[in-house]
Amino acid sequence: MPQTTPTWIYRTRPTGPITGETFSLEDTPLPEPAEGEVEVATRYLSLDATNRVWLTEGALYTDNVQIGGPMRGVLLGEVTKSRHPQFPEGTHLSGIGPWAARFVTDGKGFAPFPLPKGADMAEAFAILSVAGPTAHLGLLKIGGLQAGEVVSISGAAGSVGIMAGQIARAHGAHPIGIAGTDEKCAALVDHYGYAAAINYKTEDVAKALRAHAPKGIDLHFENVGGPVLDAALANMKDFARLTICGLISAYNATDPVPGPYRFGEIVNRRLTIRGFIILDHLADFPAITQDLARWMADGTLRMPTHVVDGLDKAPEALNLLFEGANTGKLLVRL
Amino acid sequence: MPQTTPTWIYRTRPTGPITGETFSLEDTPLPEPAEGEVEVATRYLSLDATNRVWLTEGALYTDNVQIGGPMRGVLLGEVTKSRHPQFPEGTHLSGIGPWAARFVTDGKGFAPFPLPKGADMAEAFAILSVAGPTAHLGLLKIGGLQAGEVVSISGAAGSVGIMAGQIARAHGAHPIGIAGTDEKCAALVDHYGYAAAINYKTEDVAKALRAHAPKGIDLHFENVGGPVLDAALANMKDFARLTICGLISAYNATDPVPGPYRFGEIVNRRLTIRGFIILDHLADFPAITQDLARWMADGTLRMPTHVVDGLDKAPEALNLLFEGANTGKLLVRL
Repeated sequence: MPQTTPTWIYRTRPTGPITGETFSLEDTPLPEPAEGEVEVATRYLSLDATNRVWLTEGALYTDNVQIGGPMRGVLLGEVTKSRHPQFPEGTHLSGIGPWAARFVTDGKGFAPFPLPKGADMAEAFAILSVAGPTAHLGLLKIGGLQAGEVVSISGAAGSVGIMAGQIARAHGAHPIGIAGTDEKCAALVDHYGYAAAINYKTEDVAKALRAHAPKGIDLHFENVGGPVLDAALANMKDFARLTICGLISAYNATDPVPGPYRFGEIVNRRLTIRGFIILDHLADFPAITQDLARWMADGTLRMPTHVVDGLDKAPEALNLLFEGANTGKLLVRL
Repeated sequence: MPQTTPTWIYRTRPTGPITGETFSLEDTPLPEPAEGEVEVATRYLSLDATNRVWLTEGALYTDNVQIGGPMRGVLLGEVTKSRHPQFPEGTHLSGIGPWAARFVTDGKGFAPFPLPKGADMAEAFAILSVAGPTAHLGLLKIGGLQAGEVVSISGAAGSVGIMAGQIARAHGAHPIGIAGTDEKCAALVDHYGYAAAINYKTEDVAKALRAHAPKGIDLHFENVGGPVLDAALANMKDFARLTICGLISAYNATDPVPGPYRFGEIVNRRLTIRGFIILDHLADFPAITQDLARWMADGTLRMPTHVVDGLDKAPEALNLLFEGANTGKLLVRL
C-alpha cells in the first residue's frame, strides 16, 4: 500500500479573507524518492503576506499555487530519505514547497539551510528565509538607504518591519516605525532598533511623521498601503525614494482599493517609487545571508517568533497576518 | 505721471476650475529700467497645466504665485528698453515672468530665445520653451527610453504628448498615444509620430493597450492620471518604468482624487515610477535645445499651436487645457 501524507490542497479562490472553503487538508500519495530525489519532513512553515497574493487570480509573479494543487510556501525541512548526493539524510533545507507534512523533491528551489552556530532554529529560519533578505534588499539595494537618513517603515511590527528597523539602525539611519498598538510601538523602540514609533490607530500619522521627521523622509519602506502610505507621501523630502515591499491592506480586499490619494506628490516632490520581489534577487542571497548571520551573532539582529503548532492550523494562522495579530515572524511548527 | 501696464493679479484661490474671481486684470506701475535692467514687452504666454498647480495651497516646488501678486508663467518677450549689456533692445527672451503686457526685470531666470533659422516664432516657442524639453527629459533622461521599446503616452494630443510621440519615434521606439477624440487620435498617427492611438472616451483603454502592445509596455509616460493610469498599470512589462510628468486630471479637483487603484502592480510587476519637474534639469537644456532645433530643422518635429489673442483672454484660455479642448500648444498672443 502506498504511503500518504497530509497536504493542504487549494480548493476555492477566496474573495476576501481565507475561509474554511479555501483549502482542504487531504492525504496525498507520498512516493519513494527516485534516484536524485529526497524525502523531506517539514519542520516549519513560514507564513507570509505574499502567500495570500498567490491565491489571487490574474497575472502574478509566480504561478506556484493552482486550484486543485498543494498550497505552497517557504518552509524549513529535514531530509528523511535521500537518493541525492548533495542532500544527505539529516540535511536541513529551505525553499518553497508544499504545505505538507512530508514531500518528495529533486531539490530544485531548495538550498541547505545555513543555521548559524548557536542560533535558535526557529529564529534563524524566521530571519534568514524571507524577512531578513526582504528588509535588507528593500532598504539597501532597492531603497539605497544611506547613513544619517530618515527612513519610515510601515507594518513595522511585522517580521519584515522588525528586521528593517534593526538593519536601518545598524546602517546608521534613523528608522521611524508605524504599527497598530502601543505595545507594538513600545517594543519597536525598546528592542528592535526604531528611533520612534507611531500608532496608526490612535495617532494622526501624517502629523506624527512631521513631528518625528521635521525635515522630511528620505526613504519610505512600505508594507501596508492605504492611508499610511498617504501619510508618508505627505512627508517626503524632494527627490526622496519609496520602496514598495508589499501592500497587505489590499490583499484581502474584495473591491479595488483606492489610493494612494496623494499620488500627485510623486511630481511635486520628484519621488522615485520602486516595487520589488525578493525572488528576483536570489543571486544576492549569499552576501545578504552573510550580513544577517554576522548581525545575529553579534546581537544586532533579533526576531520575535509567533509559533503556531500543527499543520492543521496553517490556514487560520495565515489570517492572523491580516488582522495585525502578530508581532514578528509567524511560523507553523510541525 | 508713472507708466502702468495691464497685469493679471492672483486674487482668490480656486477650489475647482479657475473662475472670474481667481484673477483680476489691473493696471500696475511700470518703472523705468534701472542700470542692469530691461523692459520687456510680452509677445506670447505659454499656458501649461502646471500653472494651475502653482495656484494650489501647500508645499509646492515653486512659490512663484502669491495671492495679491502677479500670475506668472513661461513667456516669450522682446526687450523694448535696455540698460543690460547682455540683452540689447530687440532681443527675444524666454523665461518665467508675469502675465503682463510689459514688465521690468534684471533678466534673472530669462535667457535669449534661440529662434532657429527659418522657424515660425510661435511654433519654435511652443516646442523649445516647455513642451519639447519636458518630453525629451521625461522620455530619455528620466524614462530611459531605448530604441525598440513600447512607450504609452497619456495626454497625447497635448503639447507635451505631441512632442513625446515624435521624439519617441525619432528615437526608434513604438509610441502609443491616448487622447480624447477620434480626430485627435487620427492626427497623432498621421502627423505626430504615433504608431497607434486610443480614444479613452470610447475605447476600453486597458484592452486597447493589450491589443496594441501584446507583450506589454516598457515605459509609460503619464500626463493625466486617473483611470488612464490604471489602464497602463494593468499592461506594464515586468521591471517596466513609469514617468509621471503631470496629473492634469487632479489639478482642478476639489476633493482628493482616488487612485491609481492598481497600485499593487508596482510590486507584482516590480515597476519603477519617477516624478520629475523640468526646472530641476536646466543644466540639460542646452543639449536638449540642440536636439530639438535639429529635429525642427530636418522636419522630424512639428507642433500645432492653438493661439488665443489678447492678454485679457489668458485665464479662460488656461481652462481650455483642463477641458481637453486643445490639440498641441496653447498660447496667448499679445
